[in-house]
Parts: sequence; C-alpha cells; structure tokens
Amino acid sequence: MRISARNQIKGTVVEVQKGATTSHVRVDIGGGQIVTSSITNEAVDDLGIKAGGKATVVIKASDVMIAVD
Amino acid sequence: MRISARNQIKGTVVEVQKGATTSHVRVDIGGGQIVTSSITNEAVDDLGIKAGGKATVVIKASDVMIAVD
Amino acid sequence: MRISARNQIKGTVVEVQKGATTSHVRVDIGGGQIVTSSITNEAVDDLGIKAGGKATVVIKASDVMIAVD
Amino acid sequence: MRISARNQIKGTVVEVQKGATTSHVRVDIGGGQIVTSSITNEAVDDLGIKAGGKATVVIKASDVMIAVD
Amino acid sequence: MRISARNQIKGTVVEVQKGATTSHVRVDIGGGQIVTSSITNEAVDDLGIKAGGKATVVIKASDVMIAVD
Amino acid sequence: MRISARNQIKGTVVEVQKGATTSHVRVDIGGGQIVTSSITNEAVDDLGIKAGGKATVVIKASDVMIAVD
Repeated sequence: MRISARNQIKGTVVEVQKGATTSHVRVDIGGGQIVTSSITNEAVDDLGIKAGGKATVVIKASDVMIAVD
Repeated sequence: MRISARNQIKGTVVEVQKGATTSHVRVDIGGGQIVTSSITNEAVDDLGIKAGGKATVVIKASDVMIAVD
Repeated sequence: MRISARNQIKGTVVEVQKGATTSHVRVDIGGGQIVTSSITNEAVDDLGIKAGGKATVVIKASDVMIAVD
Repeated sequence: MRISARNQIKGTVVEVQKGATTSHVRVDIGGGQIVTSSITNEAVDDLGIKAGGKATVVIKASDVMIAVD
Repeated sequence: MRISARNQIKGTVVEVQKGATTSHVRVDIGGGQIVTSSITNEAVDDLGIKAGGKATVVIKASDVMIAVD
Repeated sequence: MRISARNQIKGTVVEVQKGATTSHVRVDIGGGQIVTSSITNEAVDDLGIKAGGKATVVIKASDVMIAVD
C-alpha cells in the first residue's frame, strides 16, 4: 500500500506508553530526533507495535506547521 | 513562546511553492529527510519563509500515524 | 505497509479536481456514499490517482467527529 | 446547523468505549463498514452517544488521505 | 444537528478569499479576535458563506494546541 | 518563536483534567468563551500548564470548520 501522506520517515520504536484508550509511541528517526505519536491502543495491538521494532512515522502535509525564530 | 506540540524539528527551508491560497513548504531536517508542509500563503508572507532560511517543523502528536511493514 | 489509522475504506475514484497546489479527490465507497479528500497535487501525481482507479480512503480516528440530531 | 465538513455519513453507534478522558465510538455506516472515532468523554456525555443510537460521522476533507495498492 | 466538537464559537464572516480549490474564511468572534478557516470552495458555495453573514467556527479539541511564554 | 498557525488567541487556563495519557485543558479567551484543548500529559508537565496561568490557544487554519444555521 502506498499512501498520499507526503511525510513518511523510517525509524525504530523506542517506547510505547499505553493509557486507558490512547497510546503514545515514540520513534527514533535518526539524527537524534524522536517523534511522538498519539494513536489508539487498538492500533498498537493490531500492528504489534513495541519497543525495538521498525516503524515508519506518517504525517499528512496539512498537519505540519512551520515556526521561525 | 513554547508550544504543547511534541514534535519540533529544526531544519532549513529548501523550497516554497505558492498556490492560489495554499503554499507547500519543504524543509530539510537532516539525515536526508525532507518534510513537506501545507500552510496558508499568508503565513509564508507573515513569517518571511523562503528557501535557504532556518525553520522548525512543528507537528502535534495526535497528527502522527505509525506504519509497519 | 500497514498503518495505524483505524479507518481504511476501499472504493473507486470518481473525480480528481486539481487546483494550484491542492487537489480534491472524490471516492465512491459504495452504498451511495462519496468521500471527499483534499491532498497535494504532488500526491495525486506520485500515486497516479485518477478517475476510475481503485483507492482506499484512510482516516485517523482522532479526525472523526460524531453528530446527532 | 449545517457544517462545512464535506464528509457526513449516517449510521448507528455500535460501541462506546470510555477511557480516562478519551472515548472511542464505533459507528456502523452500512455496507459492512465500521468507522472509529476518538472524541472526548465530555462530548459522549453531552450528546448522549450510546450503542444503538443513530449518529452521523463527520470528517473534514483535509483529514482524508488516499492509498493505492 | 449537534456535533461532538468541543469548540463552537459564533461570529460574523468578515472575508472570503477563494483560491483554485481552497478558500480562506475569516470570522470575527468578538473581542477583537478574527479566526481564519481553510475549507473547500465547494463548502463555501454549498453553505452560502459570504462576508457579513453569521457563522460558527467549529474546532475539535484534539486540534487545539497550548502555548506559554 | 513565531509559528505559521493563523489562530493564536490569548487567555487564562481555567481547568486541567489529566487522564492516563491525555489531558483536557480549558482556556478562557474572554467574551465568555472557553476553548477546550486535548494534549498529552507530557506537554502539560513540560510547559507547566495549570489553572490560573496565562496561555495562548493555537489552531491551524486547516483545522477550523464553518457552520451556518
């Protein structure tokens, strides 16, 4: 499957923190950058996401903001 | 100003493509990764975003998905 | 590739309307329902999206609202 | 009230799963499709959303992605 | 229709700027605050949104960030 | 830091409700309007967000919908 989302960055899952319905997944994308994702617990279970696994962070371009100093 | 968005990655603007109302801004965040952002033309003008400038991409954790092979 | 987004519905592209930077893609998901998506022109070109083609609409659960009468 | 969101699909609530602050609501939109929504517990209580009730899923076009095989 | 989105603020449309596919609508919500919305041209036409008309801005809680100095 | 998000409204935090991983923050923006934000617990802690503090709500224009009667 290929998806329209313009931003797809490969990395390694470093932490999965499960809440009551929502999990926070942290992915190391290299260069010292950790990306945090908030997804459903159901998705974590369904995809078998766990620390140490390979994963791609996927972000739609319209969800990316730009900041300047 | 500090913002709640968990993902803030510094980089360099490599392209600004202006449409009728919406611009696409591409930011090199290092490690060979380019992030694409879709924002208003007004924001591009207001912040003076242009190729070669420093910029930070900002993404709310709830807008980040995870994919696995 | 499998993605965390909880909503993935198969259908057929019925219209692609290209703007200056942003396209509107309409997908018939059956049962008389047409879903409208706003994505970058670049994504349309990259994935070869065109009327008549098969496509899956993908929506993160946190982007779905509920209304009642 | 009429809203700008392009995607409004009627269905029946099949499950409400409440977490600490966030609920997952599943709506059967027909044709064998279940749509999952992540909304605040407060919204669930305010609108009286419960399994068996009629509901409309509402999704802004800019939150819909397209995938192809 | 009542919708789960927690933020619904009434105001008056002060400007509609149409692009090729995407419009920017500015709504005065009182207290000197103007809210900018980016929606499809189709929604603008469908709802008859124009300067001077009454309108409600609707924002899902998960799309609101918090900043501090 | 200046950010591309078109909507930045100053106010005062009136409530922080922490869940297992997700918090709801309510900000009084004046004129009798309360804005509700759903963000990570981590952001609440990191920015020291608490009732009584000053805060700015930040919303990307593409996340704002328009409704009419």
